Amino acid sequence: MESTAPPLLNVEDRLAGIGGEIHDLVARLYPICRSITGEGVRETLRILAEQIQLEMSEVPTGTNVFDWTVPNEWNIRDAYVKNASGERIIDFRRSNLHVVNYSVPVRARLSLMELKEHLHTAPEHPDWIPYRTSYYSEDWGFCLSHNQLLELTEGEYEVCIDSTLEPGHLSYGECYLEGQTADEMLIYCHVCHPSLCNDNLSSIALAVFLARELSRRALRYSYRFLFAPGAIGSITWLRLNEAGLSKIKHGLVLSCLGDAGRSTYKKSRSGDTEIDRAATHMLQHSGRDYEIVDFSPWGHDERQFCSPGFDLPVGCLMRTPHGQFPEYHTSADNLDLVKPGFLADSFAKCLAIIDILESNRRYLNQNPKGEPHLGKRGLYRSIGGGPGGKERELAMLWVLNLADGRHDLLAIAERSGLGYGAIKYAADVLREHDLLREMEVPG
Amino acid sequence: MESTAPPLLNVEDRLAGIGGEIHDLVARLYPICRSITGEGVRETLRILAEQIQLEMSEVPTGTNVFDWTVPNEWNIRDAYVKNASGERIIDFRRSNLHVVNYSVPVRARLSLMELKEHLHTAPEHPDWIPYRTSYYSEDWGFCLSHNQLLELTEGEYEVCIDSTLEPGHLSYGECYLEGQTADEMLIYCHVCHPSLCNDNLSSIALAVFLARELSRRALRYSYRFLFAPGAIGSITWLRLNEAGLSKIKHGLVLSCLGDAGRSTYKKSRSGDTEIDRAATHMLQHSGRDYEIVDFSPWGHDERQFCSPGFDLPVGCLMRTPHGQFPEYHTSADNLDLVKPGFLADSFAKCLAIIDILESNRRYLNQNPKGEPHLGKRGLYRSIGGGPGGKERELAMLWVLNLADGRHDLLAIAERSGLGYGAIKYAADVLREHDLLREMEVPG
Amino acid sequence: MESTAPPLLNVEDRLAGIGGEIHDLVARLYPICRSITGEGVRETLRILAEQIQLEMSEVPTGTNVFDWTVPNEWNIRDAYVKNASGERIIDFRRSNLHVVNYSVPVRARLSLMELKEHLHTAPEHPDWIPYRTSYYSEDWGFCLSHNQLLELTEGEYEVCIDSTLEPGHLSYGECYLEGQTADEMLIYCHVCHPSLCNDNLSSIALAVFLARELSRRALRYSYRFLFAPGAIGSITWLRLNEAGLSKIKHGLVLSCLGDAGRSTYKKSRSGDTEIDRAATHMLQHSGRDYEIVDFSPWGHDERQFCSPGFDLPVGCLMRTPHGQFPEYHTSADNLDLVKPGFLADSFAKCLAIIDILESNRRYLNQNPKGEPHLGKRGLYRSIGGGPGGKERELAMLWVLNLADGRHDLLAIAERSGLGYGAIKYAADVLREHDLLREMEVPG
Repeated sequence: MESTAPPLLNVEDRLAGIGGEIHDLVARLYPICRSITGEGVRETLRILAEQIQLEMSEVPTGTNVFDWTVPNEWNIRDAYVKNASGERIIDFRRSNLHVVNYSVPVRARLSLMELKEHLHTAPEHPDWIPYRTSYYSEDWGFCLSHNQLLELTEGEYEVCIDSTLEPGHLSYGECYLEGQTADEMLIYCHVCHPSLCNDNLSSIALAVFLARELSRRALRYSYRFLFAPGAIGSITWLRLNEAGLSKIKHGLVLSCLGDAGRSTYKKSRSGDTEIDRAATHMLQHSGRDYEIVDFSPWGHDERQFCSPGFDLPVGCLMRTPHGQFPEYHTSADNLDLVKPGFLADSFAKCLAIIDILESNRRYLNQNPKGEPHLGKRGLYRSIGGGPGGKERELAMLWVLNLADGRHDLLAIAERSGLGYGAIKYAADVLREHDLLREMEVPG
Repeated sequence: MESTAPPLLNVEDRLAGIGGEIHDLVARLYPICRSITGEGVRETLRILAEQIQLEMSEVPTGTNVFDWTVPNEWNIRDAYVKNASGERIIDFRRSNLHVVNYSVPVRARLSLMELKEHLHTAPEHPDWIPYRTSYYSEDWGFCLSHNQLLELTEGEYEVCIDSTLEPGHLSYGECYLEGQTADEMLIYCHVCHPSLCNDNLSSIALAVFLARELSRRALRYSYRFLFAPGAIGSITWLRLNEAGLSKIKHGLVLSCLGDAGRSTYKKSRSGDTEIDRAATHMLQHSGRDYEIVDFSPWGHDERQFCSPGFDLPVGCLMRTPHGQFPEYHTSADNLDLVKPGFLADSFAKCLAIIDILESNRRYLNQNPKGEPHLGKRGLYRSIGGGPGGKERELAMLWVLNLADGRHDLLAIAERSGLGYGAIKYAADVLREHDLLREMEVPG
Repeated sequence: MESTAPPLLNVEDRLAGIGGEIHDLVARLYPICRSITGEGVRETLRILAEQIQLEMSEVPTGTNVFDWTVPNEWNIRDAYVKNASGERIIDFRRSNLHVVNYSVPVRARLSLMELKEHLHTAPEHPDWIPYRTSYYSEDWGFCLSHNQLLELTEGEYEVCIDSTLEPGHLSYGECYLEGQTADEMLIYCHVCHPSLCNDNLSSIALAVFLARELSRRALRYSYRFLFAPGAIGSITWLRLNEAGLSKIKHGLVLSCLGDAGRSTYKKSRSGDTEIDRAATHMLQHSGRDYEIVDFSPWGHDERQFCSPGFDLPVGCLMRTPHGQFPEYHTSADNLDLVKPGFLADSFAKCLAIIDILESNRRYLNQNPKGEPHLGKRGLYRSIGGGPGGKERELAMLWVLNLADGRHDLLAIAERSGLGYGAIKYAADVLREHDLLREMEVPG
């Protein structure tokens, strides 16, 4: 079949090179030691603010947010373990993963046995440094490769963690793009991970370029990009913005968008929201391998948005899900793991979802009794009897048949098996010929 | 299991030879040059009227029918292309497919190059003449085999199409069989195709014998057989009969019923109407290969009946669907393509669907608490403990269990996995023993 | 994943040896000649009453029960066929299956030809004696192995059936265990079969031990164990207890629970009741092969409980269903066919279903907005960032996410894919921490 509709994902020409730009931003953010609070997050947000209009919020330590309390702010200058010769055998300056994130300050001399109680390794990947945290329990520790652990010899070690854990603030940033309506699409990235690229600098950087792209467009929905620490960040934001949550019509949590794996969409809790349908359709018609997974209360901040008291229509777009790639939460989640090509592909898919949501509407066939005479309007081939229908004609017939007020364009695409782009194009043509009228949505 | 219920499709004895009779009628109608208007349709309807009571309608050119207008009437006496030697190298008298249907009159002398702009072939089947139309755009043309096209030499050609395209009428015919109720089953055949056998003389001829068969029966439903040109015919009929459409409880568009392919049923737009269920059940229990396809707004006049403003419960029964057999819309759709055996099989299947619809009812179990004691009525084997249940007993138990007012007999057949015939037979027996009562349908 | 929840089926330790005890009771009941009425049933019930508190009922012959009438009571002392030499070649004292159950008294001398009209064999298993009945049609007969039939020679035979068929009573027994609420779970076993072990002494004996086990527990539901003859027994009980049927919230018919086949659960008529869901979940998580079959009005007394006038939530738990094992209704359904291990497995599965029903409730998350802070309550690992979630944490998150009043614990288990035991354990922990509250059920 001949198609005259524009292909859905063809942003390639205009957006050539976007993968490289996203990767450059990942690289710039990579060295910063982020956590759920502290200067690392602030510095990250300041860099994002160079590229997009970002409103920063600071929420004081001790603020009660539902069942949680904003914790002390954590900052760190240096940390090391020195051997008897005074050599830094574990050195925060080489990798910020070496310190258990949120470690309390410590200065001590310990035997190897005492030290080992504070060491964390990933034996299954003996050359990689694991990433560990201790946000809500006062503790300290170091992470190192398992091979390095095996090499440690008996003797006294000097331990130093030059951190502070004191009243301060929790920081997050929002980029709001005003659209035609106050109805919002929320795009969320957790920003609390230190030097880890796929999880989640890939998404943070991608979201920045997505916001830039959308800021150049006339938008139906308003868009809110939220960059906040995992769990406590989304919970805090939900608490402070509870009054406006009903405006959120669609939401996407972005995570792990730069690795080589196939794209994965995790559905919202209710499982059949418009964002679920749009993401599913997009992936089904992407021409590439993909996976759709049901909601589970395990993962990223969709856990909070989809808690039963909110039950927001928020899904999660990933490539390989958290915990399912070997490099996850280790030093191997580095700049080599995320590639410009995969970032660009993820970027195009985000835009394709948004394209669907922006244009998805219900129309009413203005000639619902029998087919309208497309031929007299030049919309149908004049010589009949030939084989097969062209996709363009087929798309028009599907739109006309299902433009009954019960099907939005996405539902017509779903039922017809045609791509959304072809259906949307057919609807535009039919509307231009006054054969369709947009359905009034009750205010 | 032993079955004492009459098999569903066993019309073979009484209807032996029906396939041959249908084929004879196809053969008689074959030479006529039909179109969406004109003498060819009228002659066809007159032949049908020899066999069934047919009410003919004539709708004047220019009549507005929804978004369409009844076109000028087309008639043709002769057409040819002569070469420089005056030989008719393309000759309407050899095949009416040679002329693009609805060609305007033309008399001209043309070079080969000029002529070629008006020639249509089917290169993928180089020996066959394709069928082409130009109903709604004033044009003319000839169709010929691709091999013949390749043999045409340079030189001057004389072209003649002795047609008229003038105000007249659109013709259609109806055969109405009055049943016990005014509720109707509509059976529709398009009659606009010239010398093409499977599409759709097979269905036209079959419908005639179906109407004859039903006219000999006591009927619950009234039946309306409608023979009309494709698209404009059904649209015109719908416009002129709009007030009575609510009487249509079931409908079947018949097409391509004589080829060797398996039977195919295309569901109505809503997909779960009683005709959909009856046709599906019949095919599932036919013991032969079959296919059920979902509705799509592409195909025959179900497109009009199932447009959103009507949404009638009309499906389409075919063997190989239009466009899916190579001979479709070519000169190879001839008397050899349709066979008496396939026509008889399609005929039996139509009757089997009608048998279900005629007898499908809801019953109420008159002893709904526990099973009634079938044994004391002689309805159950007297020696117990043996293996397996006989189908006859099983069917009675299913009917009794589901005769709760929510299941019609067809639903009982569907859920039990038994054939409709066995369920119907069980219900008849139970009713005779006052164990069932027909449910009153709210008037 | 590490699991800290108790495994669902682990009753093995405490119940070691239960299979042997059940088998011993089967062996004790095996020789008795039971029928739908008579001393055999009474003697059986008296033996059951040694182990559980059993209330016996006697319903007089002639009592009308819905469409049925309680028949004459049948008792038998002796029966035989003697050859010309006076040898008992067929002898009731060797197997009570030799007599067609409910045979009227007879004393006669017959030729072989005359005799043969009253003989029943199972030619497909030539060494086994089939089981046959003639409850509702006055008749008599003998059952014998097919090989024995083939050996019979011409000559005169003396036939004696020393039975009585006279006004008396139909007997059944009930064991009622009072629980916290008047809502009941019904457990039904047919007790009408003579010397047949799997069908249904396996279930009768198992039910006795189930009643004993439950009698030692604090119960939410009240339990009614009903031991009654097939069909006429359940119909009689339903008639006499019609006023209280609305108390039955769940029911299980038990049959054929001791053979080597996989466990089979046959759903109730509506197919989605809580007992259906509980039995399905239990089997899915049993770690063994199983089968779930849809309801059909063929089988045991679920036919009566699930008749449309009652439509009770009663399923049927079996191993190999009736009629599907070769020994069914023959002398080969003996003490060797049922094994202690299979009886113990069936017993554990019954208890596992009951465990689910006893504890299945709806809870409301008391912190439904975002996740509650499990870490501060010691319910979450303190060091974060590691791979995977432990099942214990995952189960808590699932319970919290779905404790919205629309999901009971079983629904949470179903949706999460986790076992009911893990979900139940998580709910208990969360309730102890006041994170869940039981939902009030409207009285």
